[in-house]
Amino acid sequence: MKAKISIITLGVKNLVKSKKFYAKLGFKANDKYKGIIFFKLQNLTLALFPQKELAEDATVSVKGSGFRSFTLAHNVSSKKKVDAVLAEAKKAGGRIVKFGQDVSWGGYSGYFKDPDGFLWEVAWNPFMDLV
Amino acid sequence: MKAKISIITLGVKNLVKSKKFYAKLGFKANDKYKGIIFFKLQNLTLALFPQKELAEDATVSVKGSGFRSFTLAHNVSSKKKVDAVLAEAKKAGGRIVKFGQDVSWGGYSGYFKDPDGFLWEVAWNPFMDLV
Repeated sequence: MKAKISIITLGVKNLVKSKKFYAKLGFKANDKYKGIIFFKLQNLTLALFPQKELAEDATVSVKGSGFRSFTLAHNVSSKKKVDAVLAEAKKAGGRIVKFGQDVSWGGYSGYFKDPDGFLWEVAWNPFMDLV
Repeated sequence: MKAKISIITLGVKNLVKSKKFYAKLGFKANDKYKGIIFFKLQNLTLALFPQKELAEDATVSVKGSGFRSFTLAHNVSSKKKVDAVLAEAKKAGGRIVKFGQDVSWGGYSGYFKDPDGFLWEVAWNPFMDLV
């Protein structure tokens, strides 16, 4: 198996609403395909698909609640940029769950939730080149 | 905001067990940092972090159950390779939840679960270059 992830698919409640949110963040939507949205990011594809259909595709129950136990991190090159991206996410309709702050591992980070509650960390990490 | 995801972090129950699983799939672990595992993939970083600590870091409740409402897709260049990767995942200790099969959108795909139940789709897609 190659060490790569081609697509991250988020199962969403409202495709139109979620698409608008990510479009406001500057992600370019490919809506050539019906019923699914693909955002071609710099390094992989982010897909939005109705939650129910995603569960059906994986042949699992759609039932679930609470913490999804994963986060997506968006790394930037300075503390200021962490705050700027969090502000941008808020303006787009996201909810700040943790304001940018110095963290125990020596970086600076905060979190926002997208319209479905998916957690994005915005981080400045002085130890790893993730920008 | 740039259109990129730097890291996907999975909140896991057992760091050692999960690390072994992904190592068996051929992902190279960087365990230079204590208490967190980073796999530098071709296009982004996959991190494993204890579930409880991940929730704490995001300042959200760790409570959650059932469908996490997201999938990670690993695309390959043929139907045969879909079956081969699924077999590899099973051998590594993953659970096949959907065997490779022709799917409605014109491709061929199957799913496996990692030790924490995270869903990976293995897919051949003749319409998009995701390999």
